[in-house]
Amino acid sequence: MAKVRIILGSKSDLEICKPIEEILSEFGVENELFISSAHRNPEKTTKLATEAEKGGVKVIIACAGLAAHLPGVVAAQTTLPVIGVPIASGALNGVDALYSIAQMPPGVPVACVAINGAKNAAYLAIQMLANSDDELREKYRAYKESLKV
Amino acid sequence: MAKVRIILGSKSDLEICKPIEEILSEFGVENELFISSAHRNPEKTTKLATEAEKGGVKVIIACAGLAAHLPGVVAAQTTLPVIGVPIASGALNGVDALYSIAQMPPGVPVACVAINGAKNAAYLAIQMLANSDDELREKYRAYKESLKV
Amino acid sequence: MAKVRIILGSKSDLEICKPIEEILSEFGVENELFISSAHRNPEKTTKLATEAEKGGVKVIIACAGLAAHLPGVVAAQTTLPVIGVPIASGALNGVDALYSIAQMPPGVPVACVAINGAKNAAYLAIQMLANSDDELREKYRAYKESLKV
Amino acid sequence: MAKVRIILGSKSDLEICKPIEEILSEFGVENELFISSAHRNPEKTTKLATEAEKGGVKVIIACAGLAAHLPGVVAAQTTLPVIGVPIASGALNGVDALYSIAQMPPGVPVACVAINGAKNAAYLAIQMLANSDDELREKYRAYKESLKV
Amino acid sequence: MAKVRIILGSKSDLEICKPIEEILSEFGVENELFISSAHRNPEKTTKLATEAEKGGVKVIIACAGLAAHLPGVVAAQTTLPVIGVPIASGALNGVDALYSIAQMPPGVPVACVAINGAKNAAYLAIQMLANSDDELREKYRAYKESLKV
Amino acid sequence: MAKVRIILGSKSDLEICKPIEEILSEFGVENELFISSAHRNPEKTTKLATEAEKGGVKVIIACAGLAAHLPGVVAAQTTLPVIGVPIASGALNGVDALYSIAQMPPGVPVACVAINGAKNAAYLAIQMLANSDDELREKYRAYKESLKV
Amino acid sequence: MAKVRIILGSKSDLEICKPIEEILSEFGVENELFISSAHRNPEKTTKLATEAEKGGVKVIIACAGLAAHLPGVVAAQTTLPVIGVPIASGALNGVDALYSIAQMPPGVPVACVAINGAKNAAYLAIQMLANSDDELREKYRAYKESLKV
Amino acid sequence: MAKVRIILGSKSDLEICKPIEEILSEFGVENELFISSAHRNPEKTTKLATEAEKGGVKVIIACAGLAAHLPGVVAAQTTLPVIGVPIASGALNGVDALYSIAQMPPGVPVACVAINGAKNAAYLAIQMLANSDDELREKYRAYKESLKV
Repeated sequence: MAKVRIILGSKSDLEICKPIEEILSEFGVENELFISSAHRNPEKTTKLATEAEKGGVKVIIACAGLAAHLPGVVAAQTTLPVIGVPIASGALNGVDALYSIAQMPPGVPVACVAINGAKNAAYLAIQMLANSDDELREKYRAYKESLKV
Repeated sequence: MAKVRIILGSKSDLEICKPIEEILSEFGVENELFISSAHRNPEKTTKLATEAEKGGVKVIIACAGLAAHLPGVVAAQTTLPVIGVPIASGALNGVDALYSIAQMPPGVPVACVAINGAKNAAYLAIQMLANSDDELREKYRAYKESLKV
Repeated sequence: MAKVRIILGSKSDLEICKPIEEILSEFGVENELFISSAHRNPEKTTKLATEAEKGGVKVIIACAGLAAHLPGVVAAQTTLPVIGVPIASGALNGVDALYSIAQMPPGVPVACVAINGAKNAAYLAIQMLANSDDELREKYRAYKESLKV
Repeated sequence: MAKVRIILGSKSDLEICKPIEEILSEFGVENELFISSAHRNPEKTTKLATEAEKGGVKVIIACAGLAAHLPGVVAAQTTLPVIGVPIASGALNGVDALYSIAQMPPGVPVACVAINGAKNAAYLAIQMLANSDDELREKYRAYKESLKV
Repeated sequence: MAKVRIILGSKSDLEICKPIEEILSEFGVENELFISSAHRNPEKTTKLATEAEKGGVKVIIACAGLAAHLPGVVAAQTTLPVIGVPIASGALNGVDALYSIAQMPPGVPVACVAINGAKNAAYLAIQMLANSDDELREKYRAYKESLKV
Repeated sequence: MAKVRIILGSKSDLEICKPIEEILSEFGVENELFISSAHRNPEKTTKLATEAEKGGVKVIIACAGLAAHLPGVVAAQTTLPVIGVPIASGALNGVDALYSIAQMPPGVPVACVAINGAKNAAYLAIQMLANSDDELREKYRAYKESLKV
Repeated sequence: MAKVRIILGSKSDLEICKPIEEILSEFGVENELFISSAHRNPEKTTKLATEAEKGGVKVIIACAGLAAHLPGVVAAQTTLPVIGVPIASGALNGVDALYSIAQMPPGVPVACVAINGAKNAAYLAIQMLANSDDELREKYRAYKESLKV
Repeated sequence: MAKVRIILGSKSDLEICKPIEEILSEFGVENELFISSAHRNPEKTTKLATEAEKGGVKVIIACAGLAAHLPGVVAAQTTLPVIGVPIASGALNGVDALYSIAQMPPGVPVACVAINGAKNAAYLAIQMLANSDDELREKYRAYKESLKV
């Protein structure tokens, strides 16, 4: 049963977002990845958002470029924490996505990470899950120590 | 039966968006205004988008500030043309909303007007409707002439 | 008789804008493409704008980069709806064109799409035309369904 | 024992950040607020970051304007999830703080919310805590429902 | 017979642009001011641009905010030098107008001054005219000296 | 005797600025090109600015990237009209140079053209000189006509 | 004999820059303040820059808004360290000045502080002078400690 | 004993920052280079900042990209002057780092140079050190003269 649900707005985001799966798996966090555009497939997106909690998901990571509505649309339809990853694509190179993901209105937060910050989306999810998983916290602590070399 | 459906993302957009109603009514175009946030009330927004066509609506105008997902979320759920009005609110003063509304991905267009460009949303809707309403076109032509003074 | 008139500000925009013709033709919408800079050939541009309506055109799509005055100049001289496509060219990579096309003054709207958003200009034109062409709407609806895979 | 530790970079951020305390308390989430600039008082900031976990804190919210290093500096010294609130102050009106908080390097994430998005920092913390507190989730769900009116 | 023709895109630009008239008159340069929007009154604008040279005008100053097409539209229709003044109005506070006026394509230049730089438009016109008017040059030289206090 | 003095802030601007010489020569306008950084060689720059008028120069074109102070520094030391060309170089790709050249304070104007707009600097100089050279004006008029093809 | 020479580009910068004098005097650092625009009074500016070293000055602080060439122009004409303070004035609110002051070319550095960061210009000068003045360093250390309350 | 301590936030900044070492060594200024991320290794960064003064260091140069907290974090923990070099990396190409380094709060200055302005960081350090080292000043003066060719 996946604890983290990863949703990409487009197949073209796969390369940048692959580290999310890799890091989560490396930390032993079950995860599942879907591709579902908020604009091209709103029904699938709604389903992925509304049914996540019941399915045991604890954190949703949503990645999107350009208008990048996906993280906000997902956040609107779940009570789970949603992490948004702005993808750099198109002429504005991710500033559009950054603004669209960060500037959510009061009541419906999205946790925005850096443009193309796929890795940090994974680590942030791990930090959240570690709040009720001591082993996971120790793994992240060890990883953080390893950054110091 | 309203031809133009106006949807505001927030009650606070009412003052800037009032001219939409006024102009449409002045041109004899039936219209109706709803307040429905894409984030705070996604179900209502979905209903307003998906049922518009059946209800006889020909053009939807959606106004939103900040992350401003409303126009894109509506466009995702209708085949009608959707006009988006970026509202200047918050620290970025509408640049966030402009990018979020203009930078839609291929397949799901939104017709973006100026930041706080409520009036032009109404005129653009009128231009669209005038394609099958000669009287309306003449009214708009007369209005356009009147700008020349 | 063309329903959509496409005007490019420069021959160099042809590659990015070719999808407009292709999509419209694929949907069975007659269209015609002209190259006419608002700055280098204002008389031709004026003619293309002022004579469009009489010629049966229903929607004009104007594409331009840099100062990108073309869509606004065309909109000033017609009562037809004008869709503007900001082209990314030069050092500002399309932000200049986006602002120049979106920020039109009250009374003379332009429907702005994404930077290099040629495809969406075509789909937006189709949505407008579909308001009096049920067959076209069904084609667009089918296309939209096809995006869901 | 506080579950959420709020740290402000400056006393002048108090007015914008007061809703964080109010919302958390309203939801029954124990919290504590400190003022500690990452630049003017690095030792106190280090202490607040490094000792939080041992003290039972589950989520840290850090708010700062201008260079806005506080959330990143805190995140560097804890394994807890850190939410960053960019405050609009000074000539750049929060764009500086937004970039500084969102653009964290791989390995040390900060969960960035909107400029002046104090309220959403509280709601995001609640969403995180709700993952192991069903009652809290129900409260948030009820709150979210209440937004729909 | 006016040597400098001033064209404002909107009556609302009058206050910011009044110094143009004042400075030119102070320097004894005959001038005339018109209000003519490139978008709301393209025919009048065309006339003001195309007939300027024959009327003895040597320099045109065009002032506009928002999309700010006026200077470019005028430059397209005259061989006279055109000075463009971006006016700060609307949510983007003149950045839109600056880009729209400065980023003209090769072949059709506009001489852009600062946002709201009405005074410098007058001084730049004086510098141009001084090339064939020694007395005017001495006046400007004296003015320039007076700035040194 | 050169009528147009071209000054480049750096040898590396030569490639982008070569068209200035070419166009002026093609139009029969005598010109001379110097390389003199406002920062690395302020004395030479001062000499080039202060002695231009006496030497018969009518227009100065100054090109610079990054901080791009050259056009302003030259304008400060002459009564001749100065055209500034912002060069795209470095991480900000010319936005820094554009702002630095356009935003001159009252009293000391610079005529700013587009980023990398070397060609338009030449055409603008030609327009200025044509005010007292009918033959030159006819050449520019012919050139402008040729753009219409 | 002043150790720090403060130069303001405009009398209007006095209010924002007064803290420079106040802080330096409070720390017992002799200082002198001049108003000299790089554009309106280049000769005075040159004199203030070139003669500073001989007069015993150790650090120059230059403050300017808009195109903000003053710090760079001063740096070009001295071997002393120059601190630049971008002043927020005009429509771009200091971003123009920030870019113009920070983006200096290799060989001629300016030490840029925050927009309107007058106080930090003084503290930075104190840090530089403290390298050969132990008493001054202790004063600054005490001040820094005092920030921790 | 090194007079200038260079700290890079990441090994990947080495190529851009190599000129700092080279220039300092060329001028006979002893220097030492460390790699220490403010986020990945806060303890090492703290040590490098707090122990610098005792070790005889007179100036610290800190280089960082993205959120770029390093220079500010170092400045918070020393009384020495700190020069910050914003590195262009990631989707925002150094604007994020520029803002983060320049916009420091009152009391804790950082001397910001251009994006990727590694060379100027070295020259600025030399200017500071030259205040108590006449031979060094003459070397820099000679270097500055050599720029005039």
